[in-house]
This record gives sequence, C-alpha cells and structure tokens, in this order.
Amino acid sequence: MSFNKGFENGIVILGAGNVATHMSLALRKAGHNIKCIYSKTIHAAKTLAIQVDAHYTNEINQIPVEADLYIIAVKDEIIEIIVQNLKLKYGIIVHTAGSISMSVFKDRYQNYGVFYPLQTFSKLREVQFNNVPICVEANNKILENKLFDLASSLSNHVYKVDSEKRKSLHLAAVFASNFSNHMYSVARDILKQTDISFDLLKPLIKETAQKAIDQDPMQAQTGPAVRNDDKVIRKHIEMLKDNPEYQNIYKFVSDNIYYIRNKKDN
Amino acid sequence: MSFNKGFENGIVILGAGNVATHMSLALRKAGHNIKCIYSKTIHAAKTLAIQVDAHYTNEINQIPVEADLYIIAVKDEIIEIIVQNLKLKYGIIVHTAGSISMSVFKDRYQNYGVFYPLQTFSKLREVQFNNVPICVEANNKILENKLFDLASSLSNHVYKVDSEKRKSLHLAAVFASNFSNHMYSVARDILKQTDISFDLLKPLIKETAQKAIDQDPMQAQTGPAVRNDDKVIRKHIEMLKDNPEYQNIYKFVSDNIYYIRNKKDN
Repeated sequence: MSFNKGFENGIVILGAGNVATHMSLALRKAGHNIKCIYSKTIHAAKTLAIQVDAHYTNEINQIPVEADLYIIAVKDEIIEIIVQNLKLKYGIIVHTAGSISMSVFKDRYQNYGVFYPLQTFSKLREVQFNNVPICVEANNKILENKLFDLASSLSNHVYKVDSEKRKSLHLAAVFASNFSNHMYSVARDILKQTDISFDLLKPLIKETAQKAIDQDPMQAQTGPAVRNDDKVIRKHIEMLKDNPEYQNIYKFVSDNIYYIRNKKDN
Repeated sequence: MSFNKGFENGIVILGAGNVATHMSLALRKAGHNIKCIYSKTIHAAKTLAIQVDAHYTNEINQIPVEADLYIIAVKDEIIEIIVQNLKLKYGIIVHTAGSISMSVFKDRYQNYGVFYPLQTFSKLREVQFNNVPICVEANNKILENKLFDLASSLSNHVYKVDSEKRKSLHLAAVFASNFSNHMYSVARDILKQTDISFDLLKPLIKETAQKAIDQDPMQAQTGPAVRNDDKVIRKHIEMLKDNPEYQNIYKFVSDNIYYIRNKKDN
C-alpha cells in the first residue's frame, strides 16, 4: 500500500520551524517525497532540507509550481503574506495553524484545507508522530478524504474537524498545554527562590497529568482551593506578597476552582 | 535488614482519607506493623483497618497509648484538635501536612516531626509509593534519622526539609498540581461546550508534562502568549466572552507568561 498515492509530484513545506521540522521528518519517514523546503531564513531551509532529502529556497518565486501538496507551517501572521505571493499550477494547499480559518485560502486556490497537528513541538525533541492527533479539513469531500489518508500515514489519531471546532480546540490546547506549563514554571520559580530542587515536584507533575488522562480532571481535583481551606489559601497569598502577578493568578485560579465545584454540586 | 527497627510496638494511623490510606498500605507492604486506624467515621476506619490488618476506633481515647509512632493524616484544621486530645506514653508523633509547621506539636510532646509525602492521592487509584518524594523533619537529629530511615523503607526519594521550606514546597505543589489540573478542567469544559472529545488533548497534556520534567518549563513554553501573538490572544478572549472567569484566567496567565519571558530576556 503506497501512501504516496495522489502525491507523486511531491510535497513542498513552507516553513522550517518546530512544526515544519517534525512534520517534514514524519512525512519523509512515512515514505513521502518532500520536493522543497521554503524558509525566509536560508540556513533554516537548508538544515531541514538536508534531513529530508529535499531542495530548498528562501525565495517564494523559486518554489516549484507543480508539486501536489503545499504545507504552510509558519507563524500565523505570515500565512496571509504567503497566500498573497504563492502561485501553484494545480496543487493542494493547506496550513497547520490551530486558529486560522480555512477560508484564508478562498478565492485564490481551488483545492485547499487544513492539516493541524495537535502537539507541542520543539526542534531538538523527538516526537512519536503516530501518537499526535491530526485534525484535517478541506473545501471538498474528495480532498478531505485525501488529507485524511495522508494524516493516517503519519498518525493513528486522525480527526475531521471544521474551522470553528478547530478554533475551540486551539483555545482549549492553550489552557491544557501553555497554561499548565506556566503553572510548572511558577512552581519552579517559587522553589528556586527558596533553593529547593524542582526534582521534588516531578513525580507530582507526572501523576497529575496521568490522572487527568485516566479520569475527569474536575473529579480528580485536590488541594486547598477545592476543599475551600481558607486558612491555607490566606497563608499562600501572604507568602506571594513579593510576587503580585503570582498572587493574582493564585487568587483567580483558586476562586475559579471553588466556583466551578460549587456550580457543579448545585 | 528490618525496617521495623524502632517501631516494634507498632504504628497508629490517624485518618482514613486519601493520604492515610495510601500511607498505611505502603507501610504494611514494607513490613511495618499497623496497630490501629483512627477515624471519626467508624466505617472509614474499618475499611482501611481490614486492608492493613489493624484494629480500628472512632474514639480518640480508645487509641492505644503505647505505640511507637503516630501518623496524623487528616485535614489540616483537624490536626490541632487531635493534638489537644491525644495522649501518648513515649511514642513519636508526626503529621503529613504540607503547610502545617512542626511546631504544632511543641509543648505537648517530646518527640515529634513531619512526614510529608509529596503526591496527589485518590483512594481508588494505585500509587507507586517508591516514586513518591517524602519530606521528613524532626525536633531532634536522632529522630530525624529514624524518620528518614522509615521513609526510605517506602520510597527512593527521601528529603530532609524544614517547616519553612516545606511551606514553599506545598505552595509550589499547588501551582504544579492543583492549578495545572484546573487548566485541564477548563480545557475539557471548553471542548464539552463545542462537543469535542477531551481525548484529542491527551497526547498534548502528556507531552507538556514530560517536557517540563525533561527540561526547564520556562524554556519549553510555546503558544500565543509567549510569542506575544496579539491577534490570536484577542480572538481567544473574545471566544471566552460567555465565561468571564475563564476570560480573567486567560488574561492574567497570558500577561504573566509574556512578562516573565521579557523580564528574563532583559
């Protein structure tokens, strides 16, 4: 079974950042032909191109016009600039952004869609792409199925998600990933100020995440806020007096934990 | 090597909640003799006592006075009530609370300390206790070493931590566990409102936690706040207009992510 079906003329990747890098590596590993890497930074384009056996360029008008698929994996605000400048003969064009509607391609291209991998990527950190959920969307059914098949060649978790739902998903992901990660950062900073190793918290971080995966995180909630332990909460707020930003976060999040639990109970 | 050394006359557990249950099971598994379980709810005391082969009572004055060690694992506000009513002959008394100072025992007992397991426990969820960091403190060196040895019979991660540092640790744990868990809850709620399965976020939650464990979470931060992507941030705030509490959390946490990154860069 060849997953290259439909993409014999190769894939162009626009971007050479975290998402572009992991996406390119995963596509190459799955046997797809990466034709060209574009990045406005020639060094970044070259670094990635070498890894996936592709050409590279930092000029939009040097991008081959006869590829089958163009994947735009750049910062959100650059997508429109690329759309205004990229000419294709017949290829499909998609972006990988959580919060940009598919309609960004409307009027300029015939076949377009979205190919959104829901994961946090860092260049130097390996990712098991077969575990990464990929959300696909397209402007017609045939293309949607084609993108679904492509995604299935990379991952075991492929979903058809429209632009509206994808925006909610992206918003939820900000809470689940960026904001939870910030809570780890604050914890680490508090420990640093008292000269305690962050290692002590690592089993707790791991177990908290695993619990949320295994059961409803709202049910799994523990700690002073959910049991409305005023004495501890007041002590903690006092301890944060030199960190007014942390103090605010502590108050708002504690209030919300308590409020939601009570709303649910009533 | 017998870890029972020094505790031949058995251990009394006061409490039958999440911490008391997991602590008792771990002590029993490590070969210690649990003499009695006390809980004001007789049913809870009995349920736990049966599992660890102990007597049980719901009357403080029925607790055996000749045990070697008394572990108080109850809600913070109950600790003082127990201290005022519990008489011992010569045993050591400790509590398991993160934010209560060891001095709660001062004046009433000769040998006392703290035995704080840094993990989130749920009764029905198994915990690998050997991975749970245990922080010990005592009012004298001999006792501190004794508690250190006891903790080492349960866990590979034992630390001597004084009351001040333990309070910081507990505060940091609230951020790292309760607050990150709340971010998962909010994410789940947002998805529920749009009828999207929480399953889509699970690989992201797992990877975010693992990243924070493997590297500095501040370095690992991704998303609109850290890259100051105003357009996305404004869209997200608008999407949360029917959830003013979530909106506030979004604003405060995003501002703080950006503020900290900038503070660090300057």
